[in-house]
Amino acid sequence: MRKAGNTIDMMMPTKNDLLIAYGRIKDHIHRTPVMTSRFINQLCGCEVYFKCENFQKGGSYKIRGALNATLSLTDEQREKGIATHSSGNFAQAVAVAATIVRTKAYVVMPENAPDIKRQATLGYGAELTLCEPTLQAREKTLAKIVASHGASPLHPSNDIPVIIGQGTCAYELLEDIPDMDYIIAPVGGGGVSAGSIIAAQHFSDGAKVIGAEPANADDAYRSLIAGRIVPSESPDTIADGLRTQLGSNNFPIISAHIDQIILVEEDEIVSAMLLVWQRMKIIIEPSSATTLAAVIKQKSLFTDKKTGLIITGGNVDLLHLPF
Amino acid sequence: MRKAGNTIDMMMPTKNDLLIAYGRIKDHIHRTPVMTSRFINQLCGCEVYFKCENFQKGGSYKIRGALNATLSLTDEQREKGIATHSSGNFAQAVAVAATIVRTKAYVVMPENAPDIKRQATLGYGAELTLCEPTLQAREKTLAKIVASHGASPLHPSNDIPVIIGQGTCAYELLEDIPDMDYIIAPVGGGGVSAGSIIAAQHFSDGAKVIGAEPANADDAYRSLIAGRIVPSESPDTIADGLRTQLGSNNFPIISAHIDQIILVEEDEIVSAMLLVWQRMKIIIEPSSATTLAAVIKQKSLFTDKKTGLIITGGNVDLLHLPF
Repeated sequence: MRKAGNTIDMMMPTKNDLLIAYGRIKDHIHRTPVMTSRFINQLCGCEVYFKCENFQKGGSYKIRGALNATLSLTDEQREKGIATHSSGNFAQAVAVAATIVRTKAYVVMPENAPDIKRQATLGYGAELTLCEPTLQAREKTLAKIVASHGASPLHPSNDIPVIIGQGTCAYELLEDIPDMDYIIAPVGGGGVSAGSIIAAQHFSDGAKVIGAEPANADDAYRSLIAGRIVPSESPDTIADGLRTQLGSNNFPIISAHIDQIILVEEDEIVSAMLLVWQRMKIIIEPSSATTLAAVIKQKSLFTDKKTGLIITGGNVDLLHLPF
Repeated sequence: MRKAGNTIDMMMPTKNDLLIAYGRIKDHIHRTPVMTSRFINQLCGCEVYFKCENFQKGGSYKIRGALNATLSLTDEQREKGIATHSSGNFAQAVAVAATIVRTKAYVVMPENAPDIKRQATLGYGAELTLCEPTLQAREKTLAKIVASHGASPLHPSNDIPVIIGQGTCAYELLEDIPDMDYIIAPVGGGGVSAGSIIAAQHFSDGAKVIGAEPANADDAYRSLIAGRIVPSESPDTIADGLRTQLGSNNFPIISAHIDQIILVEEDEIVSAMLLVWQRMKIIIEPSSATTLAAVIKQKSLFTDKKTGLIITGGNVDLLHLPF
C-alpha cells in the first residue's frame, strides 16, 4: 500500500530548500549553543550534545518555522497578518515572528491555556482570542479570524515552510558537530523530527534520526506500525508540547526515514528533566527531556556514539513543577 | 579608628597577584559565558550582563579560590591533602579542586546539610565527616582532621589565595565587557565581593563594585557603618550562601573600596530568581539573585549603565523551591 517511493521523494524538501530557509531566518534568530555535561556523558556512556533551543527567541525552536513561513509571505499577505491556533510555544513564536516581520499576529488559544503563556503571547504584541478548549472550537475560531481579517493561517507543525524552518535547528547542530551518529528529536506534530530528518539527509554523514515520544502520547509510534496516521487519543502526558497529532506532511517523511521511535514513560521524562536542571543548570521543558530519557532508556544503543538532542524549549510553568 | 590607609593598601592584592592566580587556574576551570536578556534590560533600563558561574565546575565560582589555594600548596602539603568545613558550595569546590590537583579532600559538614550537597561532595571523591550543626562543632571537627592527617585547612572566603582566586571571575567579566560601569557581587563571607574589588581596581576603567546583601543577613552592611566587623546574628535568609560572617581579610578591602551595599528583601530575591529562570532559562541560586534584585530595587542608580552581575552559582535544592 505504501510503496510510493516517488511520492515520498517528492515530499522531501531539498538541500537548497533548507539552505534558502536558513539564509532567510538566520539573522533574526539566536545561534543557540550546543552544551555538554561530563556527568551526563559518563552516565550515558556516550557523547551527548544538547542543542539548546530553550535559549531561542520565544523560548523554543518554534520561531524558526514560524519565521520562515512569515518571511515567505507576499507583500499583500504580510499586510493582512498571520493567524494560528496554539496553546503552547507556537503561539509565542508566531507573535515574535510577526514583530520581526512587522506584520500582525492573531492567536487563538483555548481559555484553559496557562496564564503564563497567554501573558507571554500578549507581551509579544499578538492579538489573542480565547475559545473553548476543543479542537473544533479552535479551528472554527481560527477560520473566522482568517475570513474576517484575510490573515494567512499557519499550522504549528504541518506546513512545509514550517517543517523546513524547524530543520535549521539540526542543521546548526550538524555544523557544530559534523560527525554526529544520532540525532534525537521529540515527536509531537512531527515538525521538528521531520525537519531534523531533512537536515540529516542533506548535511550529515549518515546521522540517524530517532524520535522520542511519550508512551502516553504514542500516536506517531502507532502510526509507523500501522503505515498510516493513527489518531491521537486523549494523550495524557506531562510533555505538553507532544500532545498533538502527527501531521499529514510530516508522516511520509518520518515514516520513510526515521530510524526508530523510542517510547518513554512519564517518570522517565521527569527524571531526565530534573537531571538536566540539576547538573547543567538550564531549564528545559518536559518535551525536550524525552530525548535524554530515550538515551538513558536505550543506553546500549548509544554506547560511544555521538548523540545530538534537540532541546526544543524551556517554557515551563515554574509555579506548577512535577517534582 | 579606621584611618589605616597603609594597612589597607598592604592588604590589597596587586594586579600581578591576580594575573598569576588566573594563569594558575585558568586551564582547569570553565570560561563561563556572559549572558544577557533583552527583556531584563528593558525592565531595568540598563544593560545587564550576567557572569554565569552557575555553569562553573561544581556549580559555583567557589572552585576558583579553592583551586588557586590548592595549586599553591607545596609538594609536601599536597601529599597530605586539604580540609575545610562547609555546608555549601565550597565543599564541592574543594572536592573538585582536590581531584584536579590529585590530592585528598576532607570536608566537614553539619549533619543537617541537604542530602544533595552531601551526595555531590561525595560524588567528587571527598572524604566527608558529619558533625553537629554548630560552628563550634564544625571548627573542632576540622581541627581534629587537620591534626590527625596534617591536611592544610582552607577557609571558604577569608584566605588571601581564595579571595584572589574569586577575583578572577570579575576579571573575566571585564575582559569580555571592558567598559563596565558597575559590578554587583553578593556579600556573604566577602570573598567574591573583595575579589571583584581587586579585579575592578586593576582591570577596569573605574567600574564601581556594589555589594548585594539580604536585609535578613545584613552583617556586612552593619559592619560598614560601624567601621568594624559586626557579628552576624542568626541570619534567616533564603540566600543560603550569604548566611556567613564577613571575614577579617575581606573587611578592610570591602570597607575601603566598595561603592555601597544594597539590601534586598526575601521576596525581592525570590522574584528576581524566578524572573531569571523564566526569561533566561538558566538556574541561578538565591544568593545570585540578590544582585538582580538590587538593580531592580535601585533602578534609577543604574539607568543606561553597563552593569555586571556575578551570578555566583546554580546549586539549588530543586525539590524544595521557594515558589
